[in-house]
Amino acid sequence: MKSPVRVAITGAAGQICYSLIFRIAAGDMLGKDQPVILQLLEITPAMKVLDAVAMEINDCAFPLIHDVITTDDPTVAFRNADVALMVGAKPRGPGMERADLLKDNGKIFSSLGKIINDVAGDDIRICVVGNPANTNAYILAQNAPKVKARNITAMTRLDHNRAIYQLAAKTGRQLSEVTKMTIWGNHSTTQVPDISNALVSGEAATSLVDNDWAENEFIPTVAKRGGAVIAARGSSSAASAANGIVDHVHDWVLGSAEGDWVSMSVPSDGSYGIEEGLIYSYPVTCKDGDYSIVQGLELSDFIQRKVKESEAELIDERDTCSDLF
Amino acid sequence: MKSPVRVAITGAAGQICYSLIFRIAAGDMLGKDQPVILQLLEITPAMKVLDAVAMEINDCAFPLIHDVITTDDPTVAFRNADVALMVGAKPRGPGMERADLLKDNGKIFSSLGKIINDVAGDDIRICVVGNPANTNAYILAQNAPKVKARNITAMTRLDHNRAIYQLAAKTGRQLSEVTKMTIWGNHSTTQVPDISNALVSGEAATSLVDNDWAENEFIPTVAKRGGAVIAARGSSSAASAANGIVDHVHDWVLGSAEGDWVSMSVPSDGSYGIEEGLIYSYPVTCKDGDYSIVQGLELSDFIQRKVKESEAELIDERDTCSDLF
Repeated sequence: MKSPVRVAITGAAGQICYSLIFRIAAGDMLGKDQPVILQLLEITPAMKVLDAVAMEINDCAFPLIHDVITTDDPTVAFRNADVALMVGAKPRGPGMERADLLKDNGKIFSSLGKIINDVAGDDIRICVVGNPANTNAYILAQNAPKVKARNITAMTRLDHNRAIYQLAAKTGRQLSEVTKMTIWGNHSTTQVPDISNALVSGEAATSLVDNDWAENEFIPTVAKRGGAVIAARGSSSAASAANGIVDHVHDWVLGSAEGDWVSMSVPSDGSYGIEEGLIYSYPVTCKDGDYSIVQGLELSDFIQRKVKESEAELIDERDTCSDLF
Repeated sequence: MKSPVRVAITGAAGQICYSLIFRIAAGDMLGKDQPVILQLLEITPAMKVLDAVAMEINDCAFPLIHDVITTDDPTVAFRNADVALMVGAKPRGPGMERADLLKDNGKIFSSLGKIINDVAGDDIRICVVGNPANTNAYILAQNAPKVKARNITAMTRLDHNRAIYQLAAKTGRQLSEVTKMTIWGNHSTTQVPDISNALVSGEAATSLVDNDWAENEFIPTVAKRGGAVIAARGSSSAASAANGIVDHVHDWVLGSAEGDWVSMSVPSDGSYGIEEGLIYSYPVTCKDGDYSIVQGLELSDFIQRKVKESEAELIDERDTCSDLF
């Protein structure tokens, strides 16, 4: 039997985590043979709800769950953690400026970064979900110098999966037929869903759909899908966001499918001309618990322009929060 | 690639299904190699929410999902279904008598039973979850004579899992160490959680805990756990109920663990002196897509008395609804 992995999760009493935690406990994220200790963090007023979540986790008798820790103290939640899923964030309130949202969350993530730096495991893998996810991850990284920089990532897998569905639906094919989808950039409306290299059962997607659809329908549909779900559901994506987290960490730890790639926001190494250090979504392959940015893809002028626009937004977000690092 | 299995789910826009559907789609219930067509049923006023659920299912790009059908027409939802998860039921309203609850739900399940009889697959496996689950399943069976009687079951797996947790917590052992737990009877407060044959890493549970705890604390704690979760959470169990469904169908279709058994409410064949035909929770082993009631267990006088009390409740529930079959 493998020794248990400690998974710290923030915002643990929220809706995304109510979908997420039970999938982790069932082995969907780290494998059916990997025991887990859940280290669940919430703000003090939400502890009663979190305790109810813990009751339900226990009531599943998941064989992989070795312990469930609930706490409002981040030093407890992140202690010796091997994986941290940063789901909690301050939502945008009525009349709140974007800069204020960035700064308020920046303060949270700089504070959590310092604690992770002090108490977490040496090789902790971090996936930031709470928005603005990429810049929150950047700020966390600046405040956690002991954590390997390449292990601090943000989720664009939900966008990636949404893009796969849109292409499958457009071409009338099964989801499993679509490979090599790419999301470039920031997890925001400037993201760049890109079918340039996508395949549908081995056929070039660009030969199956026209360019006008790819540029003027596909991209905004994927980029604005979060808003469409809110409009239909009355609240934001929860189960599908949770699934994006499961997929992101699963593939990072256990490997991405042979002959395919996935999208992850990772620290830029300068690939594709993006400023080094920005947490930027790239196509990556994963193997042996690590990822590699896919190299050598050709970007059309249109995609190249969009990629730089999303980079500019990330630089602007970073500069808004420059007092936090 | 296996051909897809059609899974009909009622109450599909509700909270239990919001946890359930994504676990089925991930392959937790029928296996990671089993494609699925989801046939989701709701009442007309809930169709907008159900459409939002379908958007999120699509946004996961689950490779196993071949199609998602949303409908308010039971003949569409159950057509050619291989598995039916009957989650929806009318909840008990303020001032509502228990007999009225039984009759209102009895009408729903007699109507759905007739439709299943007409349109479902020959070998459909049914798991009733909506309360009163055992009697709802009984009424469904009376109205669906073409469905194999032994394929109409109700869920006591949530109670089973809750019982495992209580014993693990009491003995300070891991959940995976507990085997041969039993829930007898009705999925109600008369249920009989029974540790008489349970083992903890091979040791008799009865040698690890005292009889007073087993009779006077363990049984009421498990039987009333649903109410405790409501008190803590502010709404009823959803993710843990969904997990019980996943476990129930998983083990039924793919087999229960070697050397262990699970609890399922199934049509009584007279075993342990229970009236034939009642949908009664027994310890069962599952193999090759079928289940067998565990035979030859010795019941203490105390358990025997409780087992008959729960049977009496089921007979009473059945007789309350006798105009429906």
